Amino acid sequence: MAYQILDKGSIPEYLNGLPSVVEVLGKGKALDIEEVGDGNLNFVYKIRRADAPERSVVLKQAVPYLRMAGEEWPLSRDRMTFEIRALLAYNDLVPQFVPKVYHSDEDMSVLVMQNLDNHAVARYRMIEGEVFPNMARDVGDFLAETLFRTSTLGMESVERRHLMQQFNLNDELCKLTEEFIFTFPYMEHESNYSNPATDEYARATIRKNTAYKLDILKFKELFLTKTDALLHADLHTGSLMANAEETFVIDMEFAYFGPFGFDVGKVIANFLMCYTSHFYHSDDDSYQNWLLTEAMTIWKRFEQRFLELWDNADGSALLLEGFLTDDQLKEYKANFMRAIFHDSVGFCACSLARRTLGIAGVADIRDIEDLGIRSQLEITNLKLSQLLLSVHEEIHTIDELESTIESFYAENNPGLVKQKVGT
Amino acid sequence: MAYQILDKGSIPEYLNGLPSVVEVLGKGKALDIEEVGDGNLNFVYKIRRADAPERSVVLKQAVPYLRMAGEEWPLSRDRMTFEIRALLAYNDLVPQFVPKVYHSDEDMSVLVMQNLDNHAVARYRMIEGEVFPNMARDVGDFLAETLFRTSTLGMESVERRHLMQQFNLNDELCKLTEEFIFTFPYMEHESNYSNPATDEYARATIRKNTAYKLDILKFKELFLTKTDALLHADLHTGSLMANAEETFVIDMEFAYFGPFGFDVGKVIANFLMCYTSHFYHSDDDSYQNWLLTEAMTIWKRFEQRFLELWDNADGSALLLEGFLTDDQLKEYKANFMRAIFHDSVGFCACSLARRTLGIAGVADIRDIEDLGIRSQLEITNLKLSQLLLSVHEEIHTIDELESTIESFYAENNPGLVKQKVGT
Repeated sequence: MAYQILDKGSIPEYLNGLPSVVEVLGKGKALDIEEVGDGNLNFVYKIRRADAPERSVVLKQAVPYLRMAGEEWPLSRDRMTFEIRALLAYNDLVPQFVPKVYHSDEDMSVLVMQNLDNHAVARYRMIEGEVFPNMARDVGDFLAETLFRTSTLGMESVERRHLMQQFNLNDELCKLTEEFIFTFPYMEHESNYSNPATDEYARATIRKNTAYKLDILKFKELFLTKTDALLHADLHTGSLMANAEETFVIDMEFAYFGPFGFDVGKVIANFLMCYTSHFYHSDDDSYQNWLLTEAMTIWKRFEQRFLELWDNADGSALLLEGFLTDDQLKEYKANFMRAIFHDSVGFCACSLARRTLGIAGVADIRDIEDLGIRSQLEITNLKLSQLLLSVHEEIHTIDELESTIESFYAENNPGLVKQKVGT
Repeated sequence: MAYQILDKGSIPEYLNGLPSVVEVLGKGKALDIEEVGDGNLNFVYKIRRADAPERSVVLKQAVPYLRMAGEEWPLSRDRMTFEIRALLAYNDLVPQFVPKVYHSDEDMSVLVMQNLDNHAVARYRMIEGEVFPNMARDVGDFLAETLFRTSTLGMESVERRHLMQQFNLNDELCKLTEEFIFTFPYMEHESNYSNPATDEYARATIRKNTAYKLDILKFKELFLTKTDALLHADLHTGSLMANAEETFVIDMEFAYFGPFGFDVGKVIANFLMCYTSHFYHSDDDSYQNWLLTEAMTIWKRFEQRFLELWDNADGSALLLEGFLTDDQLKEYKANFMRAIFHDSVGFCACSLARRTLGIAGVADIRDIEDLGIRSQLEITNLKLSQLLLSVHEEIHTIDELESTIESFYAENNPGLVKQKVGT
């Protein structure tokens, strides 16, 4: 149907015309409609049946401008087109980890989907030290299922090119990634965040470190030109909604075919930045220990599940049955997983730096008011970024990565707990 | 206009309705129409004005079946869609090296273009030992212009994704490449060419050589997932039309975004296979010396021109002005060109093997009647393929490559000239 902006007045009639939504809410029932404030780009409504509030949906609509800035800040509605396509693809690939789609309409830029009422955005709970027992395992599974099953190992080549075609023109959001993750943070740029001591450190180190910058370019080049699999492309602890049992992945408007390691590295980086922040948020290292274990679990689970899927795959574009002997295949798989591992560590390093120096920080650290404390944490992240980028091709196993990070934090504890106690 | 198959009867009226063609041929003039036999897939006509035969065009039309096999062998007309798009792109990028397009119609699967009357297909002339003084230089320039200017170094990112979108669904022909270049020749497969001594050698060596097969898979994976630039994707001496002055590139229906080294390696491989064949075709090594020099010139010219274009580029998706210092940029360029070089050597090795073992051979060797002689040349190609694949990451300069190939041929001269003399 032709585009029109929905509001509380027009939503009931719109939903009443959608049989798949009527199945959830009932027909012609009185609805409670609440606009949810957490959509910066889009309008998001929680809609409940007045006489049975457990029957509910979420409606998300893109407007042709930036919602938080108003109509003077135009922004293409295409972002919702790609979110719809990715969420529909994920409803097929990993229905257990994404909101169920009840209705979608690219022309209307509308998604009507499952209301995740019993789940919280992980990032804010993690700042408070909440443990999510299954989240890392679920994220590892999500990564394996989505990446393997859209790769040349998991799909036949013609079918795969048709899926790629659906995402190839997500160009505006790809350009944001290219610039805000892989370019601006490593140079002087007006868009960057600023904190004097952090800036000074960045100028004295990573912004003039040739090896570091050439590695950043290597990963930018990979993002621009490697189409390993359908990426979520914005997977961080703020796009996870979880509770003690379940984990859901949301907000896939950046979805695009890119390199395997991108989603993996990014989400691990967000666990590590949370780790860094708990030098301030926690009084001891118990939550940090949990975070590191879980970050490693993401990779372990990803690798295990990816290899399981490989064992059971048929219809692969890359590997024809019988092309390799069993021994050759074993060696190939080991090389393949190691290459993904190296790239994941590299992308993790990029994410640590860009979330520290670039416009989009993580609340884990940016929400700390004291600039001096914040800066100590930021510099810790930048040191870790440099360490990981410099060794990303030299460490080959998740255990080596874990001990590298453990030693790093042991040597780079900014001692903030004492400082908090002292003030 | 809606699809209809053209023939000698309907072509005059069709062309009369196209102002851009009338400009070449004149309006309503009597035309001599000759169907050219060399189109296996498509119908190709040379059309001349009867009273002024120097005024001529070529009309190429795809039919929904394989022309050489007839209507019982259906084949999608999409191949012409991608040839049209690539030739139009090349008319912008490298008008000096491709036929000028007078008219194109994707619905009609028709191209009307410049008649290359004074140029010959290079392959057949090279078998006869003809020297084309400018061809290698032109091919190097063609490669540099087309690859650089469609890469992330030569285009802005949004514009580039829109260009990619035009070629992403060239899926049938990509699948042919995946299977016939990167899969079947390295295993037992019914589609393969067969020559007993060659088969025996292949079975005893490359088909059970783990390192070799894993390298082949590496290059297959790159072809499937790396979108460095718009490739011709079928660049060999049979898709070059040349004379003493000029070089034209034709037949770009395989065009697709793929890895830099693919076109470069493939065309060099065809020079080398011609070199191998001249152990039989020539009585001395003078033409072989020319071939090797020219094959190296392709790379040298490609690299030189690619770097010139880089020096003068603006609007790059990959490299923002000011991101690197001059020294850093120098190092980055050296690494970048070396990576293309390694990949080119690798793709060259793939091409040597698949043209020897796969269904599509090169006339340089396949047209030799004596199976025994043919087999000696084929085994020479397979040995060179193995050598180049095993060293593709160890040799870093074109001079190293040249001396590697020179030594190889010195040690692997099959001594056929004597044999010819002896029989």
